[in-house]
Amino acid sequence: MIVVLRLGHRPLRDKRITTHVGLVARAFGADGMVLTVRDDKIKEKLDDVTNRWGGNFFVEFSDWEDYIKRWKGLKVHLTMYGLPIDEVISEIRKYKDILVVVGAEKVPSKIFKLVDYNVAIGNQPHSEIAALAIFLDRYFEGNQFKRDFKGKFRIIPSNHSKIVFVKNRR
Amino acid sequence: MIVVLRLGHRPLRDKRITTHVGLVARAFGADGMVLTVRDDKIKEKLDDVTNRWGGNFFVEFSDWEDYIKRWKGLKVHLTMYGLPIDEVISEIRKYKDILVVVGAEKVPSKIFKLVDYNVAIGNQPHSEIAALAIFLDRYFEGNQFKRDFKGKFRIIPSNHSKIVFVKNRR
Repeated sequence: MIVVLRLGHRPLRDKRITTHVGLVARAFGADGMVLTVRDDKIKEKLDDVTNRWGGNFFVEFSDWEDYIKRWKGLKVHLTMYGLPIDEVISEIRKYKDILVVVGAEKVPSKIFKLVDYNVAIGNQPHSEIAALAIFLDRYFEGNQFKRDFKGKFRIIPSNHSKIVFVKNRR
Repeated sequence: MIVVLRLGHRPLRDKRITTHVGLVARAFGADGMVLTVRDDKIKEKLDDVTNRWGGNFFVEFSDWEDYIKRWKGLKVHLTMYGLPIDEVISEIRKYKDILVVVGAEKVPSKIFKLVDYNVAIGNQPHSEIAALAIFLDRYFEGNQFKRDFKGKFRIIPSNHSKIVFVKNRR
């Protein structure tokens, strides 16, 4: 099981960024996202996407320290200060249960010690959304895009049109 | 030259998302970002990152239709409706001058016809930030992370610490 722990979400300011974190987590093969602050709107938005587009993605709320300490598998924190992803991903890929911690601008420095790996997706400042996407893409080796989500809505890829297949409900 | 054209930016609502688009463009090897709406705060923020962290990333403003029509190289639009990235990237990699168009929630349907390729980073809804990151990562085959930005600030990768090297100015 792959779970994304989103730290430091501020409901007004981070609404759209955290929604993107959740959408990427789902689309790139994670099983769920845990927010450290209750925000029912984010959960509704993601549940709605899952209802229409398929899969079993969950959104939950928990205290971050508690959640990290109770996690039985590997703990990975994505940060620009960490070790280059391409040096550690084959080691990380040996694990099936991974907690992927992604922060906002400031994260408690304690996190760096609580996890097994601090992993950098490049050592330049950019985006936790991009970092999560690249991490999951490397972990699943691109196979996440081949998955069938069995949703009500499905896209037929095309070079110049928008084609959406909508399953008939009975 | 790789330029990212960010469509449909609304200064209040999209401030942080567009900033992340720009940061990813810069960190993943693009040369600049063009916004279709003037927003000096975004430009300031990105110029500030470039001043501290290095490189030559530019931010400009232009009418989108104009910019697309004047572009001499390849035009690629990232969209969940497009062709799978892994089917088209080796063809796209033959080009050196690429305009990468990324939209917000709604994009004018005209775009689909104006570009050479509509490319999907998976056919599930997620994030233009993640889509851009994966596109550039596939295009540069991961080598973007090896680039030396020669900035004033530089991170020394580490598994459990934050180490920033700051170049002395004379």
